[in-house]
Amino acid sequence: MNYKMVSYVLGWVLKIEAGCLLLPLICSFIYNDSGKTAIILSIVLCLITGILLSVKSPKNKTMFAKEGFVTVALCWIVMSIFGAVPFYISGGIKNFADAVFETASGFTTTGASILAEVESLPKSLIMWRSFTHWIGGMGVLVFLVALLPSSSGDNMYLIKAESPGPSVSKMVPKVRSMAKILYLIYLGMTVLQFILLKAGGMDTFDAITITFGTAGTGGFTVRNSGFADYTAYQQWVIIVFMILFGIDFSVYYLILLRKFKTAIRSVEVRTYICIILVSILLIAINCHNLYGSLSDNIRHTSFTVGSIITTTGYATVDFDKWNSFSKTILVGLMFVGACAGSTGGGIKVSRIIILFKSILKETKVAVHPQRTVKITMNGRLVEHETVRAVNVYMAAYIAIFAVAVLIISLDNFDFTTNFTAIAATINNIGPGLAGVGPMENFSAFSDLSTVVMTIVMIIGRLEIFPILILFSKSTWKR
Amino acid sequence: MNYKMVSYVLGWVLKIEAGCLLLPLICSFIYNDSGKTAIILSIVLCLITGILLSVKSPKNKTMFAKEGFVTVALCWIVMSIFGAVPFYISGGIKNFADAVFETASGFTTTGASILAEVESLPKSLIMWRSFTHWIGGMGVLVFLVALLPSSSGDNMYLIKAESPGPSVSKMVPKVRSMAKILYLIYLGMTVLQFILLKAGGMDTFDAITITFGTAGTGGFTVRNSGFADYTAYQQWVIIVFMILFGIDFSVYYLILLRKFKTAIRSVEVRTYICIILVSILLIAINCHNLYGSLSDNIRHTSFTVGSIITTTGYATVDFDKWNSFSKTILVGLMFVGACAGSTGGGIKVSRIIILFKSILKETKVAVHPQRTVKITMNGRLVEHETVRAVNVYMAAYIAIFAVAVLIISLDNFDFTTNFTAIAATINNIGPGLAGVGPMENFSAFSDLSTVVMTIVMIIGRLEIFPILILFSKSTWKR
Repeated sequence: MNYKMVSYVLGWVLKIEAGCLLLPLICSFIYNDSGKTAIILSIVLCLITGILLSVKSPKNKTMFAKEGFVTVALCWIVMSIFGAVPFYISGGIKNFADAVFETASGFTTTGASILAEVESLPKSLIMWRSFTHWIGGMGVLVFLVALLPSSSGDNMYLIKAESPGPSVSKMVPKVRSMAKILYLIYLGMTVLQFILLKAGGMDTFDAITITFGTAGTGGFTVRNSGFADYTAYQQWVIIVFMILFGIDFSVYYLILLRKFKTAIRSVEVRTYICIILVSILLIAINCHNLYGSLSDNIRHTSFTVGSIITTTGYATVDFDKWNSFSKTILVGLMFVGACAGSTGGGIKVSRIIILFKSILKETKVAVHPQRTVKITMNGRLVEHETVRAVNVYMAAYIAIFAVAVLIISLDNFDFTTNFTAIAATINNIGPGLAGVGPMENFSAFSDLSTVVMTIVMIIGRLEIFPILILFSKSTWKR
Repeated sequence: MNYKMVSYVLGWVLKIEAGCLLLPLICSFIYNDSGKTAIILSIVLCLITGILLSVKSPKNKTMFAKEGFVTVALCWIVMSIFGAVPFYISGGIKNFADAVFETASGFTTTGASILAEVESLPKSLIMWRSFTHWIGGMGVLVFLVALLPSSSGDNMYLIKAESPGPSVSKMVPKVRSMAKILYLIYLGMTVLQFILLKAGGMDTFDAITITFGTAGTGGFTVRNSGFADYTAYQQWVIIVFMILFGIDFSVYYLILLRKFKTAIRSVEVRTYICIILVSILLIAINCHNLYGSLSDNIRHTSFTVGSIITTTGYATVDFDKWNSFSKTILVGLMFVGACAGSTGGGIKVSRIIILFKSILKETKVAVHPQRTVKITMNGRLVEHETVRAVNVYMAAYIAIFAVAVLIISLDNFDFTTNFTAIAATINNIGPGLAGVGPMENFSAFSDLSTVVMTIVMIIGRLEIFPILILFSKSTWKR
């Protein structure tokens, strides 16, 4: 294990975090709120630790798969702990476990909150909370790779461990330029959404924070009233952008390159759009008598479906009150998730497609044992290793899911609450059903459950293996 | 597709079913109850259809994998429909969909019932209901293979499609003698349990029917009061035999051959026993204040754990009233299920072990991409095809599970009811939680849900692929 390199990268991540904290600091000066001291102290803490860890640039910068996974896992844990400091010092969140939960929920773009009413926080800390969504959405290490002048090809392992999806699409041979392009597309779309929300008359603070939450598919709200105060136009802008941020970013890259045909051919994106449309249709029919007009019905249904499948977690209505059929569709969407290579969470549409194709393959092989059946996607062969990794991912996912539900069931809440609390955290959504429904929050859980769900959120964001590898014996054997 | 052979086997299965109906017929003469006419009519119907289907012995008796899967799938569907006739004609169950559900629940050894009170049925039909557990436990086609004088090696495919577990253990090279040995062990253990229950003073009718339900890991009760009237001794006999019938039968064969060392070395059986002991311990602690004495606590806990993991579904207490933690353990056990090669259902302990080992393997491969990692069990290599089949089985299992929950959610029951209703039927257990808890029944569901759950039970018993293959396009393509 190249410990020096791991510590060096960790140090840089903390320095970046210190830099990110400048945004809420500026905000606290603008609104002249009570967050100043807490934020300044946090910046100092991040900076000192960061500098200490990265004071010496290691001679040997080689990172293998092992270092990649371990570094990414450690970075996300450390980031969440240091990012929680301003909430804790300012007294905004009194319990440190809760503060870490809230921050991890931000970085992992979950959006599950332990706050009963968000407006009791100073505006600067609300800004920090929403900004963590934006940082976590595209990934900190992707940012680091784009930034660090020293990056060599070995950084591929960092991106691999942090990027969502069954396999990293090799859009550009050079890792650094790939990371830059991703961030530029991300930034461009973020600015566009902000402009459209402002054009619709939204308050600047709300427009920035809501856009951060949409771009990262996060889901933290910034008002106690949730989305009730926003106009239909504003809600539609959010719907469209939630769905856009759930699409594989390499499709946007293809569009920028004017390769429209290849972009349109993406099976994953087509399936994703199909699932969204069918779900909206089924729920709109099933809940047709819940809202006054057809347009309200379509808007609330589209908002909820878009919010859940992209794992954003915003809510315009209390979908916990919907019919059982509609709620079951939502639970299904929680697991499906967005496209690989997007900022969304969940199992990812491409994995679902690969799983379905492997079921079809197995059926064919059982009927004709002598025949060789290959799995393809977008006309290209899906490698055997990818199929195996997807299958094992599912097994590990279920195992972690089951253990997490079991541990939090010690708090003695009902099965629906426990099941959907873990579904909402492992898939980085935010709200679940019943006790963790969209009008509820996660504050009722014990510290043990809070810690478990914090870990589960990070496991979900990093797609299991980095954390498994961090705690695996064979990683630390000489 | 060798249609003549498929029809020939189907015909034989119906003739066997007619033969099986003689037991309830005798019973109805002994108790002189109102089931006689219905049973006689059913026997005639099964016989005529069976003879018509198998009147000509086909010249070409070759069965390939395809025919094997299709035959087994069709047999189980036909058996359930014909087996429902006595319930329907006698008026014991007024809705035919419900009657088929009850019979499929019997044959698949699920034990889920739509009857609010079982004692309103004539004794002969209660006997038939419990007898279906015994028939379905070891499998009808295994019986047929043991019986049919014409069986050639091709019948391996029938056994393969009907036997539970990731791979058929090749205990004996000859399929016929293997089938005979399995049935002899099964019969021997059944007789032993009956004797022990009788020795404990249980009524003969109860001792026979309860033994049938235990041996097949079925779960139909025969009294409105459930198990409340049985003594602690009788309950302990049932506990021990439930657990014994959940063990891989090839272990008993090894014991008969005096190969004790090999028998004890079975990783699956050891894991199975470990899971049982740990679950009993955790639940006994979690529910320590629910029952008067420690011995009552241990007995009820052991009974419930044994009943659920073996997918029997008997209940001495209303475990739906237990703490959330204990109920979550039970839901977990529902999915784990018993050992492969036993009469129990669920995912099977050996599949869970293979899944865990494939997670460990993937972690190791991720850390050391150049290393080759093999999965072994009981010291032998698990073939790549088996691992793949297990992984794909899980994917198909989840897909079917999700679709089934979605369809039955149209009845608008709560999520826990829907989720555990499908968990209880796909894993062939019987009771779930909430609306389908051990003191409830399945009568509240609509006909659509009843049909879906009937199919789900058969899918679960045959471990998915036979039914998938029956409905797959490629099976019927020339």
